[in-house]
Amino acid sequence: MPQIINGQQIAEAMRAEIAAEAGAFLAETGSRPGLTVVIVGTDPASQVYVRMKGKAAGKAGFASATIELPEDTPEAELLGVVEGLNADPSVHGILVQLPLPKHIISQRILMAIDPAKDVDGFHPVNVGRLSIGDSTVLAPCTPAGCIEMLLRSGHDPAGKHVVVVGRSNIVGKPVALLLLRTSKGGNATVTVAHSRTPDLGAITRQADILIAAVGKAQIIKADMVKPGAVVIDVGVNRVDDAAHPRGYRLVGDVDFQGVSQVAAAISPVPGGVGPMTITMLLKNTLQAARQQLAEQLVTQA
Amino acid sequence: MPQIINGQQIAEAMRAEIAAEAGAFLAETGSRPGLTVVIVGTDPASQVYVRMKGKAAGKAGFASATIELPEDTPEAELLGVVEGLNADPSVHGILVQLPLPKHIISQRILMAIDPAKDVDGFHPVNVGRLSIGDSTVLAPCTPAGCIEMLLRSGHDPAGKHVVVVGRSNIVGKPVALLLLRTSKGGNATVTVAHSRTPDLGAITRQADILIAAVGKAQIIKADMVKPGAVVIDVGVNRVDDAAHPRGYRLVGDVDFQGVSQVAAAISPVPGGVGPMTITMLLKNTLQAARQQLAEQLVTQA
Repeated sequence: MPQIINGQQIAEAMRAEIAAEAGAFLAETGSRPGLTVVIVGTDPASQVYVRMKGKAAGKAGFASATIELPEDTPEAELLGVVEGLNADPSVHGILVQLPLPKHIISQRILMAIDPAKDVDGFHPVNVGRLSIGDSTVLAPCTPAGCIEMLLRSGHDPAGKHVVVVGRSNIVGKPVALLLLRTSKGGNATVTVAHSRTPDLGAITRQADILIAAVGKAQIIKADMVKPGAVVIDVGVNRVDDAAHPRGYRLVGDVDFQGVSQVAAAISPVPGGVGPMTITMLLKNTLQAARQQLAEQLVTQA
Repeated sequence: MPQIINGQQIAEAMRAEIAAEAGAFLAETGSRPGLTVVIVGTDPASQVYVRMKGKAAGKAGFASATIELPEDTPEAELLGVVEGLNADPSVHGILVQLPLPKHIISQRILMAIDPAKDVDGFHPVNVGRLSIGDSTVLAPCTPAGCIEMLLRSGHDPAGKHVVVVGRSNIVGKPVALLLLRTSKGGNATVTVAHSRTPDLGAITRQADILIAAVGKAQIIKADMVKPGAVVIDVGVNRVDDAAHPRGYRLVGDVDFQGVSQVAAAISPVPGGVGPMTITMLLKNTLQAARQQLAEQLVTQA
């Protein structure tokens, strides 16, 4: 059996570290790292995520707030809310839950968030800073979580050939850019493959480390993985399963059973990348709080 | 002999198109696309580049200006100059020639340029928009020039495996991001290799299209290239040559003689990517002028 890269366990260890650092921040400054999540409308999946984020932030000793706005909130009103949070020094991190209702242009809202408080890492300035390899940037949570899992399970990507399957803006491309940085967690040779790659198996079989982030249930089969490879599965897909009480179960982009026969290490779904994402959100909020504090001291000096 | 991808010829054809479009812009709006280049200090190489840019812009029918500032110009003064150009509606494109003197923080200057006028494509907002695959962004000139050369020589990268050697912020990473876009010139499977890649030849031999942008003279040898591959050489390196009047000659990152024996197509140095860079600067300036005009019409409506 391969090494199981247990995201739940890694996330718990990190959350304990983050809680300790949040305690130190409170002792030093008299205030807690502050995270505010904004949700517009009543999408049930979004509501679940937002509750999980609030709960995790509270448990880590953060000051956490959730602003819930009705589905028909005008764009201008939401922009006003974001500007208020930008101006509030007790709020270090702002997260606007996506997707937003159709009458709101998401990119306009993301652009309005102060990049220093953009703990999701989606503001173009932060995407740009990530792209140029800035090691102090607030990196998007899921890609940063993949890198943390690799490092904490003993699989430093430096000098390795990493194949990323998927070129999305929220996982594929940012994880590739993180892997190319010259700092810790980087220095990999990186290939990005996707739906337009003619012979996917020929590419994935070269991977020392394979990151699957394509959003198709179990498309990575055993014969597409080099024996001894490390596999990180970012996918979360529903497949029908009459035997399951909900009528479906969640599977990754990787055929776990089959690939387990060849891989040296593999992250499961669920219990892999999933728990890391919220953890990285907390880490970003703490980092944002530290950076805003430092900036404040410079301005006062 | 392989097909020679003649950058000089492609650039000349493009400049004729651009001059025609600049003429149409003048007829429609009564003003010319305006490019202003700012140079600080007396670095001879920079002065040559700036002169070439001004000359090319003038030849294409642009309104071109060069602002020359002394080496000891304070950062605040340079920022003031940039702000003046941002506010000037006759200036559609602003280029601050790098490198800047050491007492000036380049990133601060680049950040100050209005992203809509950033014809170099180095503002973090533009880097971010490039990264998320925005097809209307002002893309950096050398990487965009590589893509144009491929398309105009009949080598559409879509569905091909492109290996980029080099991960710089000005060529390697942006060309990889352009190749991953879902628009024209994109849809390639992309590998980025670099100085930390253990067996470079094993990676480069997979390339249907090989882009060398590493800045080391002739490191890509024939045995590192798959027979029938297309090779774009971005490198410009000086090698000593007593037989040459200047005492050196310019060579690329590719061993042209050797690689010509195996490649199906290859761009030479000089006369390859070089002439494309200034051409793409003109193209960006024209695009910026068009976009600013459209923006103005929206604001007035």
